[in-house]
Order: sequence, then structure tokens, then C-alpha cells
Amino acid sequence: MRPSGRTSNQLRPIQVTRQFTNHAEGSVLIEVGETRVLCTASVEAGVPRFLKGKNQGWLTAEYGMLPRATHTRNSREAARGKQSGRTQEIQRLIGRSLRAAVDLSLLGENTITIDCDVLQADGGTRTASITGACIALVDALNAMVRKGTVKTNPLKHMIAAISVGIYQGTPVLDLDYAEDSSAETDMNIVMNEDKGIIELQGTAEDGAFNADELNEMMQLAHHGISEIIEIQKSALS
Amino acid sequence: MRPSGRTSNQLRPIQVTRQFTNHAEGSVLIEVGETRVLCTASVEAGVPRFLKGKNQGWLTAEYGMLPRATHTRNSREAARGKQSGRTQEIQRLIGRSLRAAVDLSLLGENTITIDCDVLQADGGTRTASITGACIALVDALNAMVRKGTVKTNPLKHMIAAISVGIYQGTPVLDLDYAEDSSAETDMNIVMNEDKGIIELQGTAEDGAFNADELNEMMQLAHHGISEIIEIQKSALS
Amino acid sequence: MRPSGRTSNQLRPIQVTRQFTNHAEGSVLIEVGETRVLCTASVEAGVPRFLKGKNQGWLTAEYGMLPRATHTRNSREAARGKQSGRTQEIQRLIGRSLRAAVDLSLLGENTITIDCDVLQADGGTRTASITGACIALVDALNAMVRKGTVKTNPLKHMIAAISVGIYQGTPVLDLDYAEDSSAETDMNIVMNEDKGIIELQGTAEDGAFNADELNEMMQLAHHGISEIIEIQKSALS
Amino acid sequence: MRPSGRTSNQLRPIQVTRQFTNHAEGSVLIEVGETRVLCTASVEAGVPRFLKGKNQGWLTAEYGMLPRATHTRNSREAARGKQSGRTQEIQRLIGRSLRAAVDLSLLGENTITIDCDVLQADGGTRTASITGACIALVDALNAMVRKGTVKTNPLKHMIAAISVGIYQGTPVLDLDYAEDSSAETDMNIVMNEDKGIIELQGTAEDGAFNADELNEMMQLAHHGISEIIEIQKSALS
Amino acid sequence: MRPSGRTSNQLRPIQVTRQFTNHAEGSVLIEVGETRVLCTASVEAGVPRFLKGKNQGWLTAEYGMLPRATHTRNSREAARGKQSGRTQEIQRLIGRSLRAAVDLSLLGENTITIDCDVLQADGGTRTASITGACIALVDALNAMVRKGTVKTNPLKHMIAAISVGIYQGTPVLDLDYAEDSSAETDMNIVMNEDKGIIELQGTAEDGAFNADELNEMMQLAHHGISEIIEIQKSALS
Amino acid sequence: MRPSGRTSNQLRPIQVTRQFTNHAEGSVLIEVGETRVLCTASVEAGVPRFLKGKNQGWLTAEYGMLPRATHTRNSREAARGKQSGRTQEIQRLIGRSLRAAVDLSLLGENTITIDCDVLQADGGTRTASITGACIALVDALNAMVRKGTVKTNPLKHMIAAISVGIYQGTPVLDLDYAEDSSAETDMNIVMNEDKGIIELQGTAEDGAFNADELNEMMQLAHHGISEIIEIQKSALS
Repeated sequence: MRPSGRTSNQLRPIQVTRQFTNHAEGSVLIEVGETRVLCTASVEAGVPRFLKGKNQGWLTAEYGMLPRATHTRNSREAARGKQSGRTQEIQRLIGRSLRAAVDLSLLGENTITIDCDVLQADGGTRTASITGACIALVDALNAMVRKGTVKTNPLKHMIAAISVGIYQGTPVLDLDYAEDSSAETDMNIVMNEDKGIIELQGTAEDGAFNADELNEMMQLAHHGISEIIEIQKSALS
Repeated sequence: MRPSGRTSNQLRPIQVTRQFTNHAEGSVLIEVGETRVLCTASVEAGVPRFLKGKNQGWLTAEYGMLPRATHTRNSREAARGKQSGRTQEIQRLIGRSLRAAVDLSLLGENTITIDCDVLQADGGTRTASITGACIALVDALNAMVRKGTVKTNPLKHMIAAISVGIYQGTPVLDLDYAEDSSAETDMNIVMNEDKGIIELQGTAEDGAFNADELNEMMQLAHHGISEIIEIQKSALS
Repeated sequence: MRPSGRTSNQLRPIQVTRQFTNHAEGSVLIEVGETRVLCTASVEAGVPRFLKGKNQGWLTAEYGMLPRATHTRNSREAARGKQSGRTQEIQRLIGRSLRAAVDLSLLGENTITIDCDVLQADGGTRTASITGACIALVDALNAMVRKGTVKTNPLKHMIAAISVGIYQGTPVLDLDYAEDSSAETDMNIVMNEDKGIIELQGTAEDGAFNADELNEMMQLAHHGISEIIEIQKSALS
Repeated sequence: MRPSGRTSNQLRPIQVTRQFTNHAEGSVLIEVGETRVLCTASVEAGVPRFLKGKNQGWLTAEYGMLPRATHTRNSREAARGKQSGRTQEIQRLIGRSLRAAVDLSLLGENTITIDCDVLQADGGTRTASITGACIALVDALNAMVRKGTVKTNPLKHMIAAISVGIYQGTPVLDLDYAEDSSAETDMNIVMNEDKGIIELQGTAEDGAFNADELNEMMQLAHHGISEIIEIQKSALS
Repeated sequence: MRPSGRTSNQLRPIQVTRQFTNHAEGSVLIEVGETRVLCTASVEAGVPRFLKGKNQGWLTAEYGMLPRATHTRNSREAARGKQSGRTQEIQRLIGRSLRAAVDLSLLGENTITIDCDVLQADGGTRTASITGACIALVDALNAMVRKGTVKTNPLKHMIAAISVGIYQGTPVLDLDYAEDSSAETDMNIVMNEDKGIIELQGTAEDGAFNADELNEMMQLAHHGISEIIEIQKSALS
Repeated sequence: MRPSGRTSNQLRPIQVTRQFTNHAEGSVLIEVGETRVLCTASVEAGVPRFLKGKNQGWLTAEYGMLPRATHTRNSREAARGKQSGRTQEIQRLIGRSLRAAVDLSLLGENTITIDCDVLQADGGTRTASITGACIALVDALNAMVRKGTVKTNPLKHMIAAISVGIYQGTPVLDLDYAEDSSAETDMNIVMNEDKGIIELQGTAEDGAFNADELNEMMQLAHHGISEIIEIQKSALS
């Protein structure tokens, strides 16, 4: 029995609010259960130095958590003067995942910066960030097309992310904090809308998992991501 | 004529949403026109080293702005590795102002941390932060009383803040970004509910202002803060 | 009765030593009672990136305090690896104030950097810094005219600064450390020689102050700044 | 055909030199083809604050690369003043992996610090680090037993790591730099000696991979890690 | 011929002003020609962690240069966020040198912090710092004796420092900036009042120097330091 | 009697391994007794900003110590976020010393970066670094000649370094850690192959030393460096 009463392959309710803020080219508040992340996609002319003159664009991501997004207050990274290893790991994952959604050669010498800021955390903030950021990215790319910044829409395909894990011996989909903090195994998966795997990061928190459990978790993830991509498309239509 | 069509002593509409997030002892989303700030008040046991053993509490504040809260994206302070001078100036103002609302000697050896994070900026983020944070503070203090952490409620009085300025030669109340960016004078005022002045920070951006203009601005501020304190009290009731 | 025996509207003795050091274009040691600040104005070709090609100059300021300028030793900011919020707040104030004294469009693409380093602190270091820096600035501008770096002297008017406050219920001028550390209200005011207000920063350290007290403090400030500007002009003649 | 002429399931030659340096409780130079990593395990009394009084030990890891371990010189992280996101990601992976090899409750209030420093890089530095560090860890744990610091050896089981990937459409084992820099998919796997999966991190650098490819890569990894664990055990005997 | 017209073994004029500032236990302005350094010695109870409980004291030093102490403005180390290698090298030299003047075992668990801040630089700032700091140290130690903080004065002997060098082929004493910036060899020497050598740091800026030149420079240094120690003693009497 | 049983003028055994790693233009592992340092010389096109357009090259050096190169683990400078004063002092010494070996005007607008990383420390790491780095430098310069990057070999002469000191009252050559940690005086000397002195840094750790002792130490150093330069040349032939 899961703490939330959900079945093992049941997602939490997902709410998507587009244009949640009004300055960014794409701005999405995604709510996955009690987890809430504000994802913006900002378009700026120019590319980092290592890409100058290569006739392509770039996409990068940053992640943050408001100090009191969690049960107890975390110190503010800006005040401490550096981002934690966890933050850097997550923002690198978000960036790599979303670069897989875009044909950078169609982007021109422009940079899209994804900002994912967690307003409230209840497990799964990195996967919610990727899922929400993809919607914000689509809005930003569409804005670029409308303004004529790009001719062809650089979107290759939608991507989405979900966590799976083994909780009390059973593979489950979309762990909330109560599950995540005591799961034996935790795995985050990013896929595209054609069921292609983009990123896979699994950790046995306690013990180890085997090839069969991996397959079971992969099937849960396929199932979950199909549902999520439906929700993304519905939000965008 | 003001860009928004408001009269010179007219506030922007103010919306207050309490318990906007669910972990903090006080959590308020305040919207002043298009400016939106999430203010949380977090209660933690213990005090900073310089207060240990003095049988009193402490209140401190931190301020941040999401990178795309503004028209163009600002770099993330956590990634840059330090808070800007502007950020530090603002969070020191917020902290000093709210300490004026609390009797620290009634707080026990506890620390309240105010976090003000700007989700969307349209001028007046520091005054909106103070106004919203005071509501979050009241919620947090009430929670402390309910839990028995303190016996007597340490609240001395409500405080609120507003900006005034001289825009195209005319003193006006509550400048939005369009006014703020071209005002001759900009002044932020923090008062308590008894019309006592807590903080006053005025800057002549272009030229100088005189004692008469100062008085006119002070009267606008008195008027505005009276309205705001009504709104705070109504939100809390 | 003030600890120093001064009357409520009496300044401390002010000493100005021009050319205190010999490399800077302007170099002034200002002594206000026991407070001593070395203020230099350095002229360098070029402007910050955000002003390039705009055919104007820039003025910026930095502030520091020697570790043992105070009763007990403060840690050295260079060794700690960052400037405190207080330092940043003060140097921003100094920079804004002195920019108000200069017509930047007459400065050419040159930058003037004001350095205010407190050798000994006894209250009022930020106002002494502004007052002294203005004299150093005039020397530096005159040097620029002599060298032909600028054709027209970009000085708009002298500025000066003073603190006022409410000490034991009475408005007083020019607080020393003994007063400052226990004053109910502390306010720093920057004015130009035409009695125009440039900056106003008031803080109720304990309680609040009202509009009448504000007016009384403003009058003290007018009085004090008139005297100070005489002293500045006399030092420059 | 692989650049090195290896078959798809062929490891590079692995050399292990124990006691490569003489101060650390465990010190191993591991060479995997041209990749060379010095792994030390240091035992220190005490645990981090969050574990004090919990009657258990801790294991943590740090990773570094000498500036000229690579084809072109990388800037020194100590000189730049921070560790890159890549470095932090890798050292977090090493730490998590090796904690899975140790029963921390048998370690007493001691901390083992793993340092993995890459002397020469040719792909697979993080997996070589984990494989080498496990040998250094075993030496360090044995030293603790010999000295009586712990009564029971806290080793749960050996762990080892290897990379697999899809190179020119074919799943291959143990990618060197030539393969790694152009592979479509790159996956790092950490397993224990009982074929349990500890960590799994796969990234589609170009395109995506599917469940079948995942299974093929997992089988290569099983095969490779079995061989590596033999090499580890042989080095330790 | 030296630029200043001095003979090869002639010191610049040295002025010592004790109690230059009024908070520090020892405060000395030392002027060596145009070089001016403010040296303070601050006494604080307590010792660094590595000395706790060892029943001895500590002495440490910090060095800084005001941004416009030099011909062109240097960036402020506090603003840049770190001390340069040069600064650290100098303050380590000052600290080691002055620790040689004190019997730390007689100091009790107290720390003396030496701050040397260069107000104006014209060559020889590190040697002027050491010479001036020793006077400030004596004042501080005497103050400790007067207050009863220590019973026996921990001073072992006076120390002083001077630079020597080879300028246009000739060994010279006490290089000013004009000489220092084009000398072939530059050497800083710290000695005690009994002609014992405490520190010796010589650098061939261009070419190399030989044993004979080293001896000639050492003799100049002996001569110079004898004079300086007379000046120190005279200032203290 | 020295702890190692060596005579007072006896060096420790020195081993030089060229091409220890395969990416750097010069890569030398130098072993001086138990001290082991990996020295690489990297050639990069371009010069620092202050030399642009001056038609000359540059040489700079960085130094590091692996955390467990020493008896007890030192914290990793990259993780702490800054290099210690000791590290900066040493790398400045290495850079100055090796610049003395090269005619920068023959180097073209190229930069050579020396990296000295201590794998194991047993005293004398800075002198071993200089001695080893000179060999790596020669290899790198020869590589530049072979590739045609420079026409004339910019090497002026070999340089080498050694420590001398006074241990239990006797001047000795090449102190190991056991001697270094209790020596009365410690001096590092860099010379060129013509017995010219490049750098001299002596510190009386306890007491002071006199001119006679200085001469005795200089003679030991001459002797030692002659032997070392033979070893360097033999390694290069």
C-alpha cells in the first residue's frame, strides 16, 4: 500500500498553467501532486563562446529551490555563495534532456535558458522540472517562429520525465516524498514521445536491484510518460 | 497622467493569498499590480551566536528574484556565487523593518527567517515584500502561540511599506516599473499601523527634491499605508 | 545633554587635508571629530561595458574600513572573501550621491573611482566619506580640466552629507558613536549646495518617529550641511 | 570496428598497483588502458555533524583531474575557486557507490575519505575511479581491523563499475575516449559482486535508445563487471 | 647614481608616529621616504583552534594596500573576493617575522593580530610593514603588561627589515620604487637586534647574482638594520 | 647524525621519469627520496592580456598537493574553494624561477604552463618541483622547436633547486620531512647551471642564523645543485 493510496502505476494529479508569469517567452507552473515548479524558457540572442561562429544555437538550464520549499528551511544558495552538488547535478540533467528535444542547428545563434525554480517540494522535483520545462520550451520556440527569429520550428519531439522506484519491495511509479525518502531504489527516466530513452539514472539507496526489477521499472516509466505526454499536449492545445 | 491611468494617490490592486505553500509557518503570495512576491516566515529553534544565552529571539530576512522575473533575464545569484549589492541592501531593509514589528524578548531563543522571492517584478518589489512578509510573520507568530512555543504573542504592531516618488514633476503613490524607471525621485517608506515611521529611503535619481516635496510624498505614503494595513488586516481576518 | 557636551545643532570639528597621498588625482583626509576617512578620486580612461559608445563617463565608489578602525577588531573583508552587506550598502550610497554632483555627459568616456577608506571610526563614517569624497572629486575634476581630458568642468554643484537622529528624545545633529549606538532614530542626509535633497535614509532603531520629528531632523540637517559646504569651499580655496 | 581493435565485449587491459603511495591507509593506482587514476582511502576519527552520536561511520569521496591529464590543459579547479558541475556529479556518484559496499554501522564513529585523482584520462575515469577505490577501501578496512579500530570488517561486498555504450550502432563495453566522444549512448553502471545493480546512469548523446538496447548494454556490463571483480580479487590476494 | 641621489648605503628618511589611531593596543604610522604604512597590533583573548589548551599565545598578520596607494589604481581585494598571491606571501612573511620577536609561551591564550595597511607605496612596503609593526607590537605588549594580561613581557628582541638589491650593477640599500622596478636583484632581509637573520628572500629579476654579491648585500643590510633599530628604539623611548 | 643516516652534504636518491604521462609536451615524474612530484609543461598559443602585442611569450606555474600526499589528509583546495597562501607562495616561486630559464622574447606569443602536483610528500616538494619542472620545460621547448613553433630554442640555461638548513646545529643539504619539521633554519635555493643564484628564501624557524652559517649553507647548496644538474642532464640525454 502506497502512503498516498495510489496504485503502483498511478501518477499523481498533474496541473499545468501556461503563461504563469508574463515576461518569459515560455512560463509554466507545473504541479505534480504537492510538488510545484515554475519553469521559464528565456530566449536571448547570442551563444556561449565555444559555439561562436558555428551557426547553431544553445540551450542551457538552471535549477533552484526556494529556501522554504521543503519541510525544514534550506539555506539559500545565493547567500551561501555556491550551488550544491545536488543542484548542479539536476540542472545538468535538465539541460542535457531538453537539448535532446531541440535541433540546435535550426536555432540560429540564439540561446534558450531554462529556469526551473521549485516553489514547493514533495518528491520528483527534477522530473517535474523537465516535464514542465518542455512545455515552456515549446511556447518559447513557437514565439520565436511567430517573431521570425527562426524559420523552421527547431522542436524535434516532446520529452517528459518521471521517477520510478522500488518501495517496500514493489516497483512503483512517480514517488512522492514519503516514498522517495524510504525507497530501496529510485530511478529517474527521461523519454521522448516515441518512447526513446534520453536519460536514465537509477540508484539503489539500500541494497541493490536486478535486471528484472529494472525491466519492471522501465515498463512503469513507459506507461507513465505516455500519460504525461498526453497531458503536455493537451495543455499546449 | 500616469502610464497606468491611476490618480496620483491611487494604489495598484493588491491581492493576498495566505498559505500559498504548505511547509512554512507563514506563507503569503502578495500581488501588487503585476508585482508578485512569495513571502514565507520560517520558525527555527536557536539564535545566532551573538545572541546565545541572552534569552531573546531573532528575525532575519533574505530576498531573491527569480532570473526571469524581469523583462530580460538576470543571471542567477546562486550561479554567480554572490548576492548583488542591491539584493543585500533590500534584504537588510526587510529584516530591519520586520524586527520593528516584533518584541524579540518575547520570542524565546527562536529565529524567524523571512524569505521574499520575487516571481514577477513590475516595480515596488521591496515594499511588496515587506507588506507581504508582515502577514506571513503574523501567521507564523500565531502558529507559535498555538503550538505553545511562545506564551505571549510577540507582535508589537502591523507594519507595511509603500513607494512614493516624483514622476514628471508630480508626487505619486506606488510607482510601477514604467514610472520607477523614469521618476525624478523615488522613496520607500515603512510605517507601523500607528503611522509611526520605521524606515525612509529616498533617492533623487535626477536632480534633487526639497522639503515641500518631501512633505507631499510623506502624506501620500501615510494615505497609502493606511489602505494597505486595512488590506493586511482583512486578509488576516 | 549629549555625551560630547555639544549642543543639539552643533557639528563636531571638521579637518580637511587635501593631497594627503600623492598618486591619486584627488586625495583628501577628512576628520570629523574622531572619525577619519581617506577619500581618493582616481581617473581612468574607459567606461564599464554597459556605457561603451554612449559618449558619457561614469563614477563609482568603493568603501572599506581598516580592521582596527573600531573598538574591537573586525575581520578583514579581503581575507573573508567578500564585502559585507553594510559595506555594499554604504558604497552604493556614496556612488549614487556623488554621481548627482557630476554631469556625466561632460566627462567623456572616463571613469572616476572614489575610494573611501576609514582609518578610524567614531560614528558617521558614511557621511564623512561623502563630504570628503566630494572635495577629492573637485580636485580630480580640476586636474582633468588642467590636463585637457575634459573641456568643461563636469561639476554640477558641491554635495555634502550629515547624520541626524533622535537621541534620548531630542533631535540632534552629527551623531558620534556614543550617540549612534543608542539613538532611537538615525538618519543620513545628502544635500547639494542649493539645499536640494539627494539622498535620505532614516531608520527607527527603537520605536518609530513621526512627521514632526522628521521635519525637525530635516532642519538640523539643512543647518549642518550649510556649515559643511562652507568648510568644503574653504578647504578648496 | 572499434578504434582500438577490441571486440564489442572486450575490456581494456587493467593494471592495479596497491600501496602506490605510502601515507594513505589504502592507495591504489588503477590503469584501464591509458586511463590512470590514483585512488586513496583515508581513515579519520570522527564523523560529520549530522551523524554525531548516531554510533555509525561515514564514507565520502572527492574527485579531481590533474590539469594536463587531458589532450588540452584544463584550468585547475583550485585556482578557479570552484569544482565544476561535472566534478561534483562524479564525486557524488563515487561516494554513493562505495557507501553501498560498507556497513556504516560497523565502522564506529570514523570517516573514510576516498580521493580519486586522474593522472591521465582516456575515457572511463569515473568507472576506473570506483573500481580502483574499492580496492583501496578494502585495504583501508583491513588496516582498521588490524589496528583494532573496528572489530568486524565492515565490507559488505566488492563493487566495481564499467561503462557501456552504443558506438556506431553497436553496443560496446568499456569505451575509451575515441569512442566516448562520438558514441550515441553512454552508460555507467556500478554493480556488486552478486550482480546487483547499485547505480545506473545512461545518456543518449545523440537520439535515444530503446529497451532492447538497454538490455544488451546491461548484459555487456554484467559480463565486464564479472571480469573486473576477478581482477580486483586477484590484486587483493 | 641612484635616482634619489642617495649613496649606496643610505636609508631613506624614516618617520614613526605612535598612537596614530586610538583604538588599537599598538598603532604606528611608519613613513620610509614616500612609503607610508599604518601598522596596528590588536590583542584579543583566545587562540586559534590548533593551539587551544596548549597554554600559549599566537601572533598572526594581515597586509593590505589601499586601491590608490600606487601610481595607477589597483582593484580592491575585498571587492574582487580574494587576496592576491602577492598579498598572501607578504602577510605570511610579516607574521613569521614577528612571531620570531615574541615568546609565545609567555603570551597566555591570547592572539595578537598585526594589520599592515599601505596608505602610499613607493617601494619597500613589506619591510616598512615589519619595521613599523614591531613598534606597534612593543606598544601592545607593554599594554598587556600594564593591564596584567601577562606577567612577564613576552618580547624576545626587536626585529626590523630592509631591502637591498643590485641596481645598475651596484649593491644598494633600501630600494625605492624607481630602483625596485628596474633592479637586477631584490632582496628583503629581516634581522633581530643581535644581527641574527630571521628571514632572507632574494630574487634575481634579471640574470643571477653570485656569492660575493650576496655577501655585499648582507653587509648593507646589517648596516641598514642597525640604523633602523636605533630609530625604533628612539621612537619607543 | 641525520635521521636518514645521510652525511651532511648528501642528497637523497633522485629518480627522473620523462614522459610519465602522454598528453603534455613535457611530463616528468621526479622522485627525491620519498617525495614524488608530477611536473608537466603545457604549451598553448596566446599570452595573457598584459603581454598581448608585445611579441613575447609567457611562462606561469601552478602547484598542488593531492589530499593524501601527506601523513594526515589535507582538505582539497578545489573543494575548499581557494588555494592556500602556502600554495600560492610556492607556485609564484616556481614560476619566477623557471621564467629565469627561458628567453621569453624567443617564445613567440605562446604560454607555457608548468603544473607541479605532489603525489607524495616527504620534505622538499617545492625544490623537487622546480628541478623536475625544468626537465619537463626542456622537453616542451624541444617539442616546440621540432614542430617549428619557435625557430631558436628559448632555453637560456638549466636551473635546479635544493633545500639546505641547520639541523641540530649543523648545516645539512636536502632536508627530508623528519629534518624539515624540526630544523632551526630552512632555506630554499634556486641556481642556474653557471652557479648563479636565482632565488634564495631562508627562514629561521627557531632563533636566528648568522652570516657564517649562511655561507656554509650556500656552499652546501652549490655542491648539491651541481650534482642535481648532472642528474637533469643525464636524464635528458
